[in-house]
Formats: sequence, C-alpha cells, structure tokens
Amino acid sequence: MSQALQVAVVGAAGLIGRAILELLAERQFPATRVLALDEAGYEGETVSYGNLELDVRPLDEVSFDNIDLAFFVAGSDVTRQLAPQARAAGTAVVDFSAAFRLDAQVPFIVPRINGASLADAADAPLVSVPNCTVTPLAVALHALSAHGLRRVTVSTYQSVSGTGQAALEALADQTTALFGQREVETSVYPKRIAFNLLPKIGDVLEDGASSEEQSVIDEVRRLLGLPSLTVEATCVRVPVFFGHAWAVHVALERPLEIDRARKLLAANGIHVVDDPKREDGFATPMEVAGSDRIWVSRVRATADGLAFWLTADNVRVGAALNCVEVAETLLKAGKLPS
Amino acid sequence: MSQALQVAVVGAAGLIGRAILELLAERQFPATRVLALDEAGYEGETVSYGNLELDVRPLDEVSFDNIDLAFFVAGSDVTRQLAPQARAAGTAVVDFSAAFRLDAQVPFIVPRINGASLADAADAPLVSVPNCTVTPLAVALHALSAHGLRRVTVSTYQSVSGTGQAALEALADQTTALFGQREVETSVYPKRIAFNLLPKIGDVLEDGASSEEQSVIDEVRRLLGLPSLTVEATCVRVPVFFGHAWAVHVALERPLEIDRARKLLAANGIHVVDDPKREDGFATPMEVAGSDRIWVSRVRATADGLAFWLTADNVRVGAALNCVEVAETLLKAGKLPS
Repeated sequence: MSQALQVAVVGAAGLIGRAILELLAERQFPATRVLALDEAGYEGETVSYGNLELDVRPLDEVSFDNIDLAFFVAGSDVTRQLAPQARAAGTAVVDFSAAFRLDAQVPFIVPRINGASLADAADAPLVSVPNCTVTPLAVALHALSAHGLRRVTVSTYQSVSGTGQAALEALADQTTALFGQREVETSVYPKRIAFNLLPKIGDVLEDGASSEEQSVIDEVRRLLGLPSLTVEATCVRVPVFFGHAWAVHVALERPLEIDRARKLLAANGIHVVDDPKREDGFATPMEVAGSDRIWVSRVRATADGLAFWLTADNVRVGAALNCVEVAETLLKAGKLPS
Repeated sequence: MSQALQVAVVGAAGLIGRAILELLAERQFPATRVLALDEAGYEGETVSYGNLELDVRPLDEVSFDNIDLAFFVAGSDVTRQLAPQARAAGTAVVDFSAAFRLDAQVPFIVPRINGASLADAADAPLVSVPNCTVTPLAVALHALSAHGLRRVTVSTYQSVSGTGQAALEALADQTTALFGQREVETSVYPKRIAFNLLPKIGDVLEDGASSEEQSVIDEVRRLLGLPSLTVEATCVRVPVFFGHAWAVHVALERPLEIDRARKLLAANGIHVVDDPKREDGFATPMEVAGSDRIWVSRVRATADGLAFWLTADNVRVGAALNCVEVAETLLKAGKLPS
C-alpha cells in the first residue's frame, strides 16, 4: 500500500460521510489529500479527519480531475448528477446511493461476501454498495448459505440515524417536548417517532412493499447471487438513536445445528453474544453503537431452519465501513489510479 | 342482563386490573359490588371504578364466599394459590395468568374466536385467557383462517406497559437521566430500555425460545385449534409506553387478494388503516393507546400468502377487554351464579 491517493467524500457533512472520514483515518487509508464535499448549505462547517478539521466545500465548485477515488454518500440524485463527471475524469467511485444497486453492469459489493469479484473489475471502476439495512443482514445470511437458503423472513428495528442528522434531532426534540409538556412537532417523519413505531420506511410501491422493504429483497438476492430466493421483509423505524436490529427467520435446505450455526457466523467475522443462561446474554443496539462488528444473539432452531437476532451500527458497519472496505479491496486489487 | 353480581378483581392495583375496572364501569357490567384486591403493599391506595374510588384490599383478608365472578390478573403464583379457593366457593374465574393456558381441561377463550364454546362450559367455570401478546394476533389470524393457515412468522414490538407500572417508570426515568446527564439505572430489565431494544422477554427455555415466544407459539395454536401449525416468533421489548405491535408474515393454503384480506379483517372487528397513497396511511402504537380496537396496516402480498402490521393497546385490548368480554359471554350464556 505505497500508493498515495487523492480522495473525495461527496456527502461529507452527513452521518455516513463523517463516519467514512473517521474510518479512513483510523485505518490509515493511504490518502495524501482528502476533500470533504457536500451540497450547498454547509459553508463554514468542518468535519474531522483524524486530527485534522476539513472544511466542507460545495459540490458545484468541484472538479474530479485530480481525484483518484470518490465516495458518494449524498443520495441517488447527487450520484446520478456527478458520478458521470467523476467517471469521465478517471476517478474510481464507491457509491452508497440506490442509483446503481440493481444495475447488472455495475459491480455490487460487500467485500466479506463477494469482494473477490472485484479482481475482474475495470480499472478505477464504479462500485455500488448496499443499503445499510442490507449489508449486516447479507453478511449473516452468507455465513449460513452453505446450508442452502430457502426462505428469509426479516423484520427490522431501524434507528433514526438511518434517516440522518435531522432525525436524531427530531427524536431528541420530541422526547424532551413530551417530558416538558411542550407540543410535539413532526417534520422528518409523518408521525411522532418518540415512544412510537413507524411501520413504513420510504414510499409504498405498487405491490404494497415499502421502498426500504423492496431494497432488502432485491439487494439480498443480488448480493447472495440467489435471484429467486424468497425474501420477505417488514421494515420499521424505532425510537433508537444508533444501531439497527433485525429479527431473522431462515428456512434452510439442509439441517444446521445451533452450535454449528454460531461457529459459522463467528468464522465470518460476526460477534456472537448468545448466552441463554445469562439474564443479559444478548446484544442490543446500545452496545453496538460505535462498534465495527456485526452482532448476533438468540440463535435458535425453527421447524425448517433457524432464527436469530442481528444488530449493528447502521452508520458505521451498515454503511461507512463497507464503503471503506470496498476501497481497500480495490486498492489491494490494483484497481485504483496510481 | 338483569343479574346483579358481586365481582372481585385480583390484582386490581396493576395496569390490567385498573383497566378491567374501567371497562366494567364503561360497559355497565351488572355488578352490585366490586372488590379491588391485590397483594400486600397497596394499603391505602385506591383504584377507579366509574365515579367511585375503591380501596385496594389485601388478598389475605379475602373470602370468595359471596363473590360470583373473580378476575385474576396478578400472575400465575397468585392464581395457583387462590383460584382453587374461589372455585370451591362457587366463584366463576377469568384467569389472565399463564397457570392454565395449556391445560386441556380448562377452556381457553377469546370470545371473538371461540366464545361460542362457552355454551358447553360448566356453571361458574374457570376460564383461561391468553397472554396480551397473543390475543390481537390470534384475532387477526382467525379472520384469515378460512384461507388455510400454513405458517405464521411474527416479530413483536412490545411496549413496556406489558411488564407493568415499574417498567413505565423505568423507561421514563432512564430517558430523563440520559437527557439530564444522570447515570442510568437498570432495575426492571437487565439492560437499558430507553432508546434501546431488548430481544428477550421472559426466560430462555431449553430449545432457545424465550418464554414469551413459546407462549405465542403454544397459545396461537391452541386458540385457533391448529396444534401443528408452524408458528415462529421473535419477541422484542421496545422503548414505547403503551401499545404492542406485530410484524406478521402468513403463508396460506389458498390465495387471498389483498382487498379481500382487508375486508375479512374488518368483518372480524379489526380497524384497517391502510392507505399506501398517504404518507401517514398506517397505524402506530401512539394512536392505539387507549383504543378498544385492534388495528391493521400495510397489508401486502408475499410469495405464498401475505404480510401485515398489527398494533393494539396491550393493556386494554390485549388483556383487560378480553377478560371482560369473557365475563360478558359467560353472563349471556347463563354461566354466572344467579
């Protein structure tokens, strides 16, 4: 890793952009220069990159001419608008938006699952990465896939940080308003989130699924290379600041003992915290916030497979870490400009 | 309903006991005298019955000799200890505890599902009713059962009121402690519940299910008369004060159109709030708290059945209302002492 790269983070002022900058510094990604870019409105703000504070610069001033690698974490519209410019300038792009996730021409990567396939990628490629609700789930399913996935039914418990900074403030404001007998305002979500549950994330599509649920279905299938896998999802926003969770029920082709399942999960880098004898022998979003690991608990047998509880920091593990691991994989595979 | 009955509520100081007293008054249950009973420790407390305030009297002073009907909502130990005395005195018992739920000799009743079977009950019977996590779910499944239930996978989002008054206080205290930079104390639950999720309700049993999950599996099967129905459950405590919710995925033998499913649910007394075109066209625990209805939203097709979101006031609809409806059914069937 003797390369010295110029790196841009598009969407640097958001929660995921900030986490990418943290991880690049922590993991000593070989960047000689890091640009923090975002849409208008963040003038004067700074973001941390290791010990440095970077000014957030407006997107419309940027040229990708000298940028080797750009992370796009500012939503599909920004990706659609600017990724072509970056590509034309020879910049490798790691795109967290939904823009190319279902585009068969674009590699769709979680390194722990299919990172090896980047060996076949073009130089300085565009790589799409999954929704933060998908990556930890797909990693866990991948760990079990040798036993033949037949059906996946998942219900999510998604923290407000998945929506962004404004949603963190909404949950805090609404909570203090309720305790202070002030009127509760709703802005980010259509109904109150404090001490409540919102069983719809994104828009409802023609067939009744929400866009978040459809994203889980489509992206899990594509990542696992199982286009006809039965995946059922209910996605729910819960009044938690950081950390998503998933109640997962899986039907398998071939029997799998619980202890063996725990070992397979652990062998795939998952932190298994599962002691039924202890009153507190399970993981919760509180513990996973800030952690770089995917945590599994409550592994148990069902009629035709198993069920388990999954939880992970949605901002870090669900989004930022995977983006950075894609960049590291590209670097190792010699796919970044040199 | 010209009868005039003496009624006791055993566990009257708890959330469910109080709700039963409210409902008895609201629904003008023909009681000439109502006794509010509870374990030691509530001396001097009163509970509301319509416009009256009743003193909570200690259980160890009570005789069931003149009591026609007793509601038991104080847990299995109290039921096991005192229900035999009540039965010996000829008192009809509606038992909300787990003591007799799986006892084939004891009727296990949700009137909207199997109330007609009480016509065959003994006079002044002992009747067991389900866990509050079961009743609304079972009513919804019953509405769809003509289409042949093949498999039910449910993940719950259970409010702290299901644990009782102390848990309401714990959630409030922990929340204000976090905002006030005070140390968070855990007492009722093994980990913090404020802004967190606890994926274990009750103890974990030998096979890995929690006692709450096993209760959902066993009681749904018994209520629906489908002892070998595949039921999978993950039960999770969420930081909500009132109102449980369920993400339900059902496989059916025979196809069921979504509109027809909504009609079947509505025909069974369920309030269907399901407008995919509206940003807020779904029900949340916030709205169901204090309501006597079961609410369904997000009905949609899956590969072999359908999925939906269910929410209901766990204290009222999940527990107290069902107890009172059992008593009303016994009254109509002429099974109460006269």
